[in-house]
Amino acid sequence: MDEQGLRGRLTEYSGRIQPSGIRALEFMASRSKDLITFGPGRPDDRCFPVDRIQEAYASIFGTPATAADALQYAPTEGSLALRSWLVRREQALGRRCELDNVLITSGSQQAIHLITRLLAEPGRDILVQAPTYSGALQIFQANGANVRRLDARPDPSSRPAFIYAMADFQNPTGACLTLKDRQALVERARQLDTILVEDNAYETLRFDGDPLPSLMDVDGGSPDDGRTVYLGSFSKCAAPGLRLGWVVGPRALVARLALIKQTEDLQASTLSQNVMAHLADFVFGQHVDALRQSYRMRRDLTLDALEKHVGNKARWERPAGGFFVWLQLAEDIDSTALLSKAIEAGVAYVPGASFFPDGSGSNTLRLSYSTVEPGRLEEGIARLGALL
Amino acid sequence: MDEQGLRGRLTEYSGRIQPSGIRALEFMASRSKDLITFGPGRPDDRCFPVDRIQEAYASIFGTPATAADALQYAPTEGSLALRSWLVRREQALGRRCELDNVLITSGSQQAIHLITRLLAEPGRDILVQAPTYSGALQIFQANGANVRRLDARPDPSSRPAFIYAMADFQNPTGACLTLKDRQALVERARQLDTILVEDNAYETLRFDGDPLPSLMDVDGGSPDDGRTVYLGSFSKCAAPGLRLGWVVGPRALVARLALIKQTEDLQASTLSQNVMAHLADFVFGQHVDALRQSYRMRRDLTLDALEKHVGNKARWERPAGGFFVWLQLAEDIDSTALLSKAIEAGVAYVPGASFFPDGSGSNTLRLSYSTVEPGRLEEGIARLGALL
Repeated sequence: MDEQGLRGRLTEYSGRIQPSGIRALEFMASRSKDLITFGPGRPDDRCFPVDRIQEAYASIFGTPATAADALQYAPTEGSLALRSWLVRREQALGRRCELDNVLITSGSQQAIHLITRLLAEPGRDILVQAPTYSGALQIFQANGANVRRLDARPDPSSRPAFIYAMADFQNPTGACLTLKDRQALVERARQLDTILVEDNAYETLRFDGDPLPSLMDVDGGSPDDGRTVYLGSFSKCAAPGLRLGWVVGPRALVARLALIKQTEDLQASTLSQNVMAHLADFVFGQHVDALRQSYRMRRDLTLDALEKHVGNKARWERPAGGFFVWLQLAEDIDSTALLSKAIEAGVAYVPGASFFPDGSGSNTLRLSYSTVEPGRLEEGIARLGALL
Repeated sequence: MDEQGLRGRLTEYSGRIQPSGIRALEFMASRSKDLITFGPGRPDDRCFPVDRIQEAYASIFGTPATAADALQYAPTEGSLALRSWLVRREQALGRRCELDNVLITSGSQQAIHLITRLLAEPGRDILVQAPTYSGALQIFQANGANVRRLDARPDPSSRPAFIYAMADFQNPTGACLTLKDRQALVERARQLDTILVEDNAYETLRFDGDPLPSLMDVDGGSPDDGRTVYLGSFSKCAAPGLRLGWVVGPRALVARLALIKQTEDLQASTLSQNVMAHLADFVFGQHVDALRQSYRMRRDLTLDALEKHVGNKARWERPAGGFFVWLQLAEDIDSTALLSKAIEAGVAYVPGASFFPDGSGSNTLRLSYSTVEPGRLEEGIARLGALL
């Protein structure tokens, strides 16, 4: 059964899936030795809490009952240990939250997928920031959604399936919504009578200033109060290899997401969940403090180097957290076309067009400073500056 | 946002999902202390290779580079270590197999889901054994497939999306297909020009006799030769809490499954995969030998007890491996109606109707001996016998 043999057998869903351009870039990048890559939006290898993870495993395997429990099937909704931890965290944040409001997913990519499968019939509108996370666009487009920019005029004839937004250190821009923007976004969701999906994967990585209320906070504060579904991730603050994210939302909606997850893969890894439950207090305390310092330093080095080597050849904002700086180049520069030259010159980035639902943004690009060695950040930006 | 608020917002897909009856049963069962349950098709807690898993973790975390690798993102197709191991295994079984033929999934439940998303447009036929694995039926029905029995007359007007079958120690019947049955099934797939999905989750748990050729073996022998897609699972032979399964199939098809997986959850846990790669030689050698002994003993005790306490009140076959014995009761007994009485009497099973695509099989039931303590097997069957 070769390519030819598959013709005429594939679903429309499968046919709509586009390979990720970022993955292709990673492959290209891996062949080039001297390359300084600002491509992948992944945490730094050197920042994983390895010792604590190892301790968690030792503790779980040290008692036959906890070992057996971690290696067995668990409820689809998630292991009791990890869901209970999340409930306590939500309660500490002042939200009324119970176990039924929480679902553990295999990373927040899966959470976005499950919500799309729950709410977005093909042809329905999904409203997004532009630019927005390319992995979410991939899901929405695969499901045949009509992906529209939040700043476009609403289609009065149909209610959107949902709004998808990141309020903090957005991927790809690094930007935060102001309080006023947040209030307006929640109000927009109410007016459109639609659900608001808040993806806050970078939540813990704030470098400057105080946190603003989440969209869920603005929307009544507790998961059963409003129309907001909150997505969190353990990938950026702990480790992506565990494949864990979570959903906090209205219990009626969470129950239905769980049924879809049950159908599609039964549950997330029990062992990963129980390990994460062990680590969570440390990760969301001391560990994120250390992460913030490490990534803040890289952000600062990146911004300094941009000032020095790129200057007025691009525009950018100062991100208050997260992994990304977003560059707007001169109108006539196509960052996709420029990429192969950049790689020849020893520097890589992600062309901005991948983050737009409508193919615009050709003169933008995303720099991720999260995995570049601090000592090489300036050299990388200098190469980019020379190219521009 | 409550139940009421969700009205009119949900996709057809979501609406078609039925909660698993088996999960409801597990919940009921957990409230009854003295219950002997033949319900869950899960491996025995006491049979996990805990020491070896712990060793694998220690080894991975013992070196910074392997620790970082295991905690980082990995390719969607799977970690190189685990895919390479599977390629070597396939080659040892005499199959031409390369990395491109292998995809690691989050359990084989996800593999069935991905294949359905790839091949089955709503309304298309999927042909199944009757009875068959209820988790697969849940997927097929959620996707709006027209699930038909393999033994029914084919619909000449449309090609089925695929055939789904288990050739060894089938869930729920425990039965194996004869060589002749296997040849006929492959021939049937060829005549219908459709894809054959071979789910072999219980593959390693053979108690008696020699293995028969797999459907893939009958269909040319190598993944690129034929129309067979082979699904394997690490849940029964190692531990379900790792959430790992695999697909071996034609590379063109595997590449498309990987794109769907990338869209839906990026990848399976890197750490689980690397741990499994460490263990795999041990698991597929010594460990499955020990498992076979343990489960064979339970099967024998179960069959003896059935002979003694149920006798001619039901019919069953002797399974040559796996977890299950399938009981056919008198025509007028409804095993679903009987279940609450059975639980009152201190014994649980899964009513057979859940395994049929057409609501038939009301006088059948599945007994899983895999998690019952050997010393309680006879008592459990005696309770069932008294009830019948």
